[in-house]
Amino acid sequence: MSGGKEFGSAGIAVVGAGLVGLGWAIVFARAGLPVRVHDGDAGRLAEVPERLLASLTDLLEAGLIEERPEAVAARVTTVADLGQAVAGVDYVQESVFERTDVKRELYERLESCLGADAIVGSSSSGIPSSAFTAGLSIAPRCLIAHPVNPPYLAPVVELVPAEWTEPGALEAVHGLMSRVGQHPIRVAREIEGFVLNRLQGALLREAWALYEEGYCSLEDIDATVSKGLGLRWSFMGPFETIDLNAPGGVRDYAERLGGLYLAIARERTDPQPWSEALIARVEAERRESLPRDGLRQRTAWRDRRLMALAAHKRRAEGEA
Amino acid sequence: MSGGKEFGSAGIAVVGAGLVGLGWAIVFARAGLPVRVHDGDAGRLAEVPERLLASLTDLLEAGLIEERPEAVAARVTTVADLGQAVAGVDYVQESVFERTDVKRELYERLESCLGADAIVGSSSSGIPSSAFTAGLSIAPRCLIAHPVNPPYLAPVVELVPAEWTEPGALEAVHGLMSRVGQHPIRVAREIEGFVLNRLQGALLREAWALYEEGYCSLEDIDATVSKGLGLRWSFMGPFETIDLNAPGGVRDYAERLGGLYLAIARERTDPQPWSEALIARVEAERRESLPRDGLRQRTAWRDRRLMALAAHKRRAEGEA
Repeated sequence: MSGGKEFGSAGIAVVGAGLVGLGWAIVFARAGLPVRVHDGDAGRLAEVPERLLASLTDLLEAGLIEERPEAVAARVTTVADLGQAVAGVDYVQESVFERTDVKRELYERLESCLGADAIVGSSSSGIPSSAFTAGLSIAPRCLIAHPVNPPYLAPVVELVPAEWTEPGALEAVHGLMSRVGQHPIRVAREIEGFVLNRLQGALLREAWALYEEGYCSLEDIDATVSKGLGLRWSFMGPFETIDLNAPGGVRDYAERLGGLYLAIARERTDPQPWSEALIARVEAERRESLPRDGLRQRTAWRDRRLMALAAHKRRAEGEA
Repeated sequence: MSGGKEFGSAGIAVVGAGLVGLGWAIVFARAGLPVRVHDGDAGRLAEVPERLLASLTDLLEAGLIEERPEAVAARVTTVADLGQAVAGVDYVQESVFERTDVKRELYERLESCLGADAIVGSSSSGIPSSAFTAGLSIAPRCLIAHPVNPPYLAPVVELVPAEWTEPGALEAVHGLMSRVGQHPIRVAREIEGFVLNRLQGALLREAWALYEEGYCSLEDIDATVSKGLGLRWSFMGPFETIDLNAPGGVRDYAERLGGLYLAIARERTDPQPWSEALIARVEAERRESLPRDGLRQRTAWRDRRLMALAAHKRRAEGEA
């Protein structure tokens, strides 16, 4: 795409200036690319420069960027008009509200203003792109590019094509994401929840069931992960973990523990909705650990911990 | 127990000098307690001092102990006779081979030599203690104390009582584990796989299924966790994660995403054994990423990463 020049070098448009969109703007600007941010809400758009500087200052303090925050922020411009925002860019990172009708409306507008070779990646965490691109002329250049929030601290991006997405479009986005420091993964075709939320969902269903059946407090289930199971998963995936957890590697592990895991799975073949009573108990136990008015402060704590972890991982990977 | 003195101060016996037993010896000795290590295999017992010093030296270099390795190791003695090893101690951490008959035989021998108030915690990762303590006079003082390996780097310990375990025994071990720097969690009653491996098993089954169905490579599934999903889980559990992942907290999150997770779970209600063909594919793909003769070196790398992570977490928690 873009006739010989590197895909992305003509610039990036981020559509939707919520938390996710702002995170994407940081990813691309940090990597040196010019970024245009568009949002239909003028008030939200006006806040972009200040929010951007605040996050970039945090990143500088955590040692995660070398440039001055103002220099990174200077590559980001806010654009009130959608057509002007996407004019001439190679790539659009769509990050509007996660509802099919909202996305569909945007993609219909994009159809009339997107450049001939430009590609659109959607930050959608659950809705497959076929649900909002069907029948559009731009559909072959649309796919899912689902990040973890915030993308500048958690690098994984799930790339999920619709059945009509051109393979070249996915490969172009894969290359772009790698160049800007993200870690793209390829999902072969659409599936509900993609990969990340399916893995999270599987663990969550077991966690909720154990709590519902009275085996463990929420706090203790959380500690089982944060003081144990989750440690290795912060630098190795589940397959590498089990490959190193039996003397003979993953086959040895599967032969030792496959039966246990099958038996456990066979106890869970009738999944039910989380009942209102169960949700109320979980909510009450969480609010005892963390009162409602502490949520915002704890979220800021989480982001500081994610930054410190990112800095730690960068050091550890440099030494490996 | 131990007539007014703090439980554990009379000393600890670790029975079984494999990887897990040695890890436990470090946990208790690091905390200042005298430890006797017993193993029926004289050759393995003879290697204990050298292996201990090697691990303690690594811990010193990672900044995870302040004392000289020799000073910590001096609190550990190896004892060839089981009766002498457990004589007079408050607590026995049983870490013998994970097979019901092996454990049963040991517990029958413990019955005749264990002190009147001593408690036995088993490192069993899957076999419930009722399977090897039934009918023994010491059964009320036996429970599961399942660590993550190595316990001196991953502090969580699952405490699981059998139906006949005295509540006081569990509470005594809970207090001891807290004092030696572990993070004990209470499981209310026996359940296959306890909590940690049930959570791991749930995620693994989904991971294997996604791979089997061709959605994703092993490497990309691993990256989804190690570059994304697993980051927050290294310092927050799954419930706190979702509580902070919706503006209104966990109830808000459950209302937004409960339906998605239910739909995913309902696609997975007929779990099958991992077939030989599937295991062979997983093994082949892993061996391509990591040849068999690299397993040992990669395991050492994992342990260094766990040490660096533990040191990072200690700093981050100190600052929080």
